[in-house]
Amino acid sequence: MRGNVLIAQSGGPTAVINSSCCGIIQEVLKYEDSFGEIYGAINGILGVLSEELVDLKREDAATIELLKRTPSSALGSCRYKLTDKDYNRVLNVIKAHDIRYCFFIGGNDTMDTADKMDKLLKRHSREVYVIGIPKTIDNDLIGTDHCPGYPSAARWLAIAVRDAGLDTRAIYTTDTVKIIETMGRNSGWLVAATALAREDPGSPPHLIYLPERPFHEDRFLIDVKRVYSKLGCAVIAVSEGLRDKEGKLLVESRAEHDADSFGHAQRGGVADYLCRLVADRLAIKARSDKPGTIQRVSMVCASEIDLEEAYEVGKEAVQLVLEEKSGCMITLKRMSGEEYKCAKGSIALGQVANQERLMPDEFINGDGNDVTGKFLEWARPLIQPGLPEYAHLRKILVEKKLDVFHLRK
Amino acid sequence: MRGNVLIAQSGGPTAVINSSCCGIIQEVLKYEDSFGEIYGAINGILGVLSEELVDLKREDAATIELLKRTPSSALGSCRYKLTDKDYNRVLNVIKAHDIRYCFFIGGNDTMDTADKMDKLLKRHSREVYVIGIPKTIDNDLIGTDHCPGYPSAARWLAIAVRDAGLDTRAIYTTDTVKIIETMGRNSGWLVAATALAREDPGSPPHLIYLPERPFHEDRFLIDVKRVYSKLGCAVIAVSEGLRDKEGKLLVESRAEHDADSFGHAQRGGVADYLCRLVADRLAIKARSDKPGTIQRVSMVCASEIDLEEAYEVGKEAVQLVLEEKSGCMITLKRMSGEEYKCAKGSIALGQVANQERLMPDEFINGDGNDVTGKFLEWARPLIQPGLPEYAHLRKILVEKKLDVFHLRK
Repeated sequence: MRGNVLIAQSGGPTAVINSSCCGIIQEVLKYEDSFGEIYGAINGILGVLSEELVDLKREDAATIELLKRTPSSALGSCRYKLTDKDYNRVLNVIKAHDIRYCFFIGGNDTMDTADKMDKLLKRHSREVYVIGIPKTIDNDLIGTDHCPGYPSAARWLAIAVRDAGLDTRAIYTTDTVKIIETMGRNSGWLVAATALAREDPGSPPHLIYLPERPFHEDRFLIDVKRVYSKLGCAVIAVSEGLRDKEGKLLVESRAEHDADSFGHAQRGGVADYLCRLVADRLAIKARSDKPGTIQRVSMVCASEIDLEEAYEVGKEAVQLVLEEKSGCMITLKRMSGEEYKCAKGSIALGQVANQERLMPDEFINGDGNDVTGKFLEWARPLIQPGLPEYAHLRKILVEKKLDVFHLRK
Repeated sequence: MRGNVLIAQSGGPTAVINSSCCGIIQEVLKYEDSFGEIYGAINGILGVLSEELVDLKREDAATIELLKRTPSSALGSCRYKLTDKDYNRVLNVIKAHDIRYCFFIGGNDTMDTADKMDKLLKRHSREVYVIGIPKTIDNDLIGTDHCPGYPSAARWLAIAVRDAGLDTRAIYTTDTVKIIETMGRNSGWLVAATALAREDPGSPPHLIYLPERPFHEDRFLIDVKRVYSKLGCAVIAVSEGLRDKEGKLLVESRAEHDADSFGHAQRGGVADYLCRLVADRLAIKARSDKPGTIQRVSMVCASEIDLEEAYEVGKEAVQLVLEEKSGCMITLKRMSGEEYKCAKGSIALGQVANQERLMPDEFINGDGNDVTGKFLEWARPLIQPGLPEYAHLRKILVEKKLDVFHLRK
């Protein structure tokens, strides 16, 4: 007997979450004998609770194919922690719609929900298979080399910071210090990716601050002054989640204001805060860029590796339920060898749920203001096809013919 | 007798300013009999003052060609107002290096400098030709249909705001209001371009606020509440230069802090300010994106029209000096007809210098919170090849089988 399929997308949107959704749909369609209807939950688990399910078999094949190049969550998403009452409802909806295969695309909160559902369904002896498909630009899921969504956000940041760095280098005579704020609540994977902007060791970003290391304002100011004295400008990347040595967020008031229902804080304003610090303490003009949600959802810099892997983890999830597996999340395992390649694997949802993978020490430099070469080696293959090629003028100076002229300051 | 060529880039970098530079160089190289050396000034007029000139004939042809796809100002830029003493120095440098053809790529400040130089040189009866090449993402130069640089920034903003809008629509159950801050000191051309993100009339951005209209906080809050009540979310685009009805900047303190040497203020933080206003007065959670300099310098969304026109205005400048014209800026004149086409023209530098073209009334709606269809008609051809195609699911709901479930709020 064929059971129906349920797909839900959760958490923050990415460039490639729809690619995973497409992978599931197209793979399910290959096995007519095994699967019945394909339902999409509107706004993740909220759509399951409210029985708002869409019939994905009634979409055009061309539309499904185009999901591969469509950013954000096409089915809608949510951040919602299920209560006990909610779990009962989910059970009823699954029963009512004869759902046997549940695919949850999301981050660690989603894996927690999926894990609890899987265990609940098993307690009720329902033959339902639950598979988690990893997705998060934060790259903080354990058990996988990286998370789909991260490589595209990383490539976006690398390109944007290279461009913003060229901007500062061109106009450094007036715009001297630029601080670019990236996402990343507790982990520095995103801010670290800005290091991929560098074409040579001295090029921007000149300093990178990650939430894995306590932030010392005085040391930061010494760093900025050193770079500025040497280059006449400084391009700095900071994570939104920087904390001082007591573990307090640099921009605490905003965080308290905006805690979401999982207790996570919505941060922002760190770059602005540090610009004021640089202006006040060093009397150097500083400006901030905060690309915000654009960095996570933009499709224009999507990594080709990411688009493909996001699709593949969707397909793999379908293969797993065909093997009657349940209660696990698909993982990516990097293979050794010259060329970059990841194999698919899986890990128990319970091991992933609510865990958080921070940047390992070997990826952060000793001073806590940059990444290491090891990080770059790890990250570079993910952002294929790399960065666009730019012109580099040799700038051969013409011989001077006049006396030195002293510019007005 | 052949004279030498001088090229300088000034003001804020753009995606296409190097394309203009490439147009000048490649066109000059076609006329060996007319032109001698090609010098590039390092950091605009500052490089002229300090005699830091690079020999552009010693660059590889492939590097020069690649300038067409290289963002920011490859020669370096500046914002610097010349003093009387400086003008004398410029005269001496021009004389010492036998410069006869000056090409200044920049905005209205640059045109002012170019104009003064042209007049000074004429007073000294030196046979030197000065041509301005328009460049500014602000699109505020008079006498031209639009300014090279603007179409690429406009396309970047249209794509970014469409993506950020999809993000909010997907996760509106937690991230309800998003305020995106664009550049644009006094004119709303950039923030207006976010309207090009819309695929249908109801899609984001739902509200657009331009500096051409006084900003009323109470009316703004009524607007936000109306959109939010209808859609459950709101995506809002605001210019960094919003002012209240007394003409005072919304974020005044920052502006006073950071005035540059032309007396322009570096603004920022308007979106953050308005997020706090929405949170405090409407008790609705709001978040801000401020792409900052990334919007002006990014190459990834460059308009094909813009890249081509920036190159063409560079070429046209060379043609003008071959006709022994001086003291003018190249302009773009839109031709009537079905298909978009601009012819090149020119205008006296004195007419452009220090003038500012704001959005005309017919491009702003009556309520001052959106653009008109006329603006969209004017702007759409500039961002060719338009926006990438995305999937739109039909979302046909499956019949419900259970009672209504009331979600925990």
